[in-house]
Amino acid sequence: MPENDKQGLSVVTCTAPVNIAVIKYWGKRDEDLILPINSSLSVTLHQDQLKTTTTVACSRNFQQDRIWLNGKEEDINNPRLQSCLQEIRRFSRKRRNTGDSTSDASSVSHKVHICSVNNFPTAAGLASSASGYACLVYTLSQLFGVESEQLSAVARQGSGSACRSLYGGFVQWKLGTQLDGKDSLAEQVESESYWPELRVLILVVSAEQKSVGSTSGMHTSVETSQLLKYRADVVVPSRMEEMIRVIRERDFPAFGELTMKDSNQFHAICLDTYPPIFYLNNMSHRIISLVHRYNQYYGETRVAYTFDAGPNAVIYTLQDHLPEFVQVVRHFFPPEVNGEEFVKGLTVCSADLSEELKRDINMEPTPKGIRYIISTKVKH
Amino acid sequence: MPENDKQGLSVVTCTAPVNIAVIKYWGKRDEDLILPINSSLSVTLHQDQLKTTTTVACSRNFQQDRIWLNGKEEDINNPRLQSCLQEIRRFSRKRRNTGDSTSDASSVSHKVHICSVNNFPTAAGLASSASGYACLVYTLSQLFGVESEQLSAVARQGSGSACRSLYGGFVQWKLGTQLDGKDSLAEQVESESYWPELRVLILVVSAEQKSVGSTSGMHTSVETSQLLKYRADVVVPSRMEEMIRVIRERDFPAFGELTMKDSNQFHAICLDTYPPIFYLNNMSHRIISLVHRYNQYYGETRVAYTFDAGPNAVIYTLQDHLPEFVQVVRHFFPPEVNGEEFVKGLTVCSADLSEELKRDINMEPTPKGIRYIISTKVKH
Repeated sequence: MPENDKQGLSVVTCTAPVNIAVIKYWGKRDEDLILPINSSLSVTLHQDQLKTTTTVACSRNFQQDRIWLNGKEEDINNPRLQSCLQEIRRFSRKRRNTGDSTSDASSVSHKVHICSVNNFPTAAGLASSASGYACLVYTLSQLFGVESEQLSAVARQGSGSACRSLYGGFVQWKLGTQLDGKDSLAEQVESESYWPELRVLILVVSAEQKSVGSTSGMHTSVETSQLLKYRADVVVPSRMEEMIRVIRERDFPAFGELTMKDSNQFHAICLDTYPPIFYLNNMSHRIISLVHRYNQYYGETRVAYTFDAGPNAVIYTLQDHLPEFVQVVRHFFPPEVNGEEFVKGLTVCSADLSEELKRDINMEPTPKGIRYIISTKVKH
Repeated sequence: MPENDKQGLSVVTCTAPVNIAVIKYWGKRDEDLILPINSSLSVTLHQDQLKTTTTVACSRNFQQDRIWLNGKEEDINNPRLQSCLQEIRRFSRKRRNTGDSTSDASSVSHKVHICSVNNFPTAAGLASSASGYACLVYTLSQLFGVESEQLSAVARQGSGSACRSLYGGFVQWKLGTQLDGKDSLAEQVESESYWPELRVLILVVSAEQKSVGSTSGMHTSVETSQLLKYRADVVVPSRMEEMIRVIRERDFPAFGELTMKDSNQFHAICLDTYPPIFYLNNMSHRIISLVHRYNQYYGETRVAYTFDAGPNAVIYTLQDHLPEFVQVVRHFFPPEVNGEEFVKGLTVCSADLSEELKRDINMEPTPKGIRYIISTKVKH
């Protein structure tokens, strides 16, 4: 319920989590409605470490809609922002007209002021548009009294992957078949409590250059990559089935291998784009190499990487293997002495590395190659 | 005709050129016969700058076959070396038995000593196996009297791309359909004199790490990349037709664009391999970016890159655009002062860069990012 003071000011604050895809979304079949060319699947992260917090105020005294992101006012006329605002207001009016709204009936005609902040630095290179639009749409829905099953399609029109941040745990975004996109929605595959041993690390590396944004990048890929259509039509459908199966079986080695393969294929598509798009840099390559050598040492997939539209790695592993792998990262990417805390977020126990493991991995250490690690887990 | 002195020592020396593919060969359908999963097309480079020189001596006094590469004795029992030696001797005997050999009839039963040297440093990162096996097979054929139309299939069994180094100019290696590989042969598309304006630069960057060798790399790609089969079966056949057409039309913008797209797709396949293979490093990415920005400035493709199994770029351009582009490279990758000569090989005229061009390219210079350039052209 929104707070409503005597001046007719209603205020609602909500939070939304970040999600990291394990089957990647890359390419739209409809740019306006944000309909994808393939289904995707992600893991929603815990909000203690990574979240967006959005406050929406609405008052009859406001002259216009306005928005502030991380303290800086942004253009409210951004078309995607407008899509979300219009859609939410349309659903709210519809609901009011059918007489089943429990919220303030008049508020939907008032202007809103939106403040949105992330608890993670932009430098973390995590796409904030997913948690950002999920949070915006959810907060507006609370203010205007819109039912939750409609939110996924609205959030999707802000940023495709935002629809997945409306659910915790393991979430698929089904591409759908309808032209109007009404069936292109997110749904939970398994809840957050299904696989509590799963842990997540974000390895933040230093980016030298700005990369191509994901909106324009995926547009260029759809226009130019001959391999993308084959990926979307042939590869991803069977990978979606397999991913859901291995999550239900809590089969980490299979989950990890498929996650890495799909991350690699997404970056392969970026390279097959013309002009090519590079999100991985030398440090990303080294992290990939380290993960494969670590798994090779144990003869099983204990750790998996995935990379979005940037050089930072997201690592999935199980609780039992976490301390050792963090120590491996610390050994091969020695952090700056007296620098900021190297591991942020959830506490990671210390672990000793055997000489044999270090020798077997056989990589030259890269001092300061990783700026810091965010340690987190699946949202619950 | 081999020299033949009184001790019964026959000696032949030949040279063979390097070739650089513009439609890439990646993946074998038969590992023993070295039969590819797709056709490929390359440009053979001038021997003044890059060549292998092989001397083969044969004498009844030699106890065994032996080989020296760049002055160091190597194992003659290398299976690919053995394939080439056996095949050449088999063809020679066949020819002698049919009575149409003009060479010393007895030499084929003698042992050989082989010396092979490259006039380019290994650090140049150019695969020397193509020119090396082409030269070995050609030199042996001169010694033993084997006809040239049979050499392509023999050289192919040493190193796939070696078959293309037996011809000058623009050369295709047709994948063939026969199980025994008899129709998997190289042939000239157009001769060296067909497009004399075409020029070639090799940009040698500093490699930090050793990469996966191409033999094991393409094996892993065939085993694991879901995208490779689609590339080989669907993408490459139409690209081969298009490449031959644009070469015949001497259409540089189309030639350059297709060359870049095919290089990118080859590296995309490497990334789609599991574990992924990275041949491009940050410096390769910068060169790619520079080429696209340069072409963007002129609104046409004046310069094209291609990368093989390593981080060095091979640049194709036309004579008229060469001086300016070399100056652009020098500006954005300032060479070491007092270091070795920056541009080796064919002389490149100096050129001035406009401030507008430098501003438009808008890249941070990377001092010493490129060690040196080899300037060359198509073999004639």
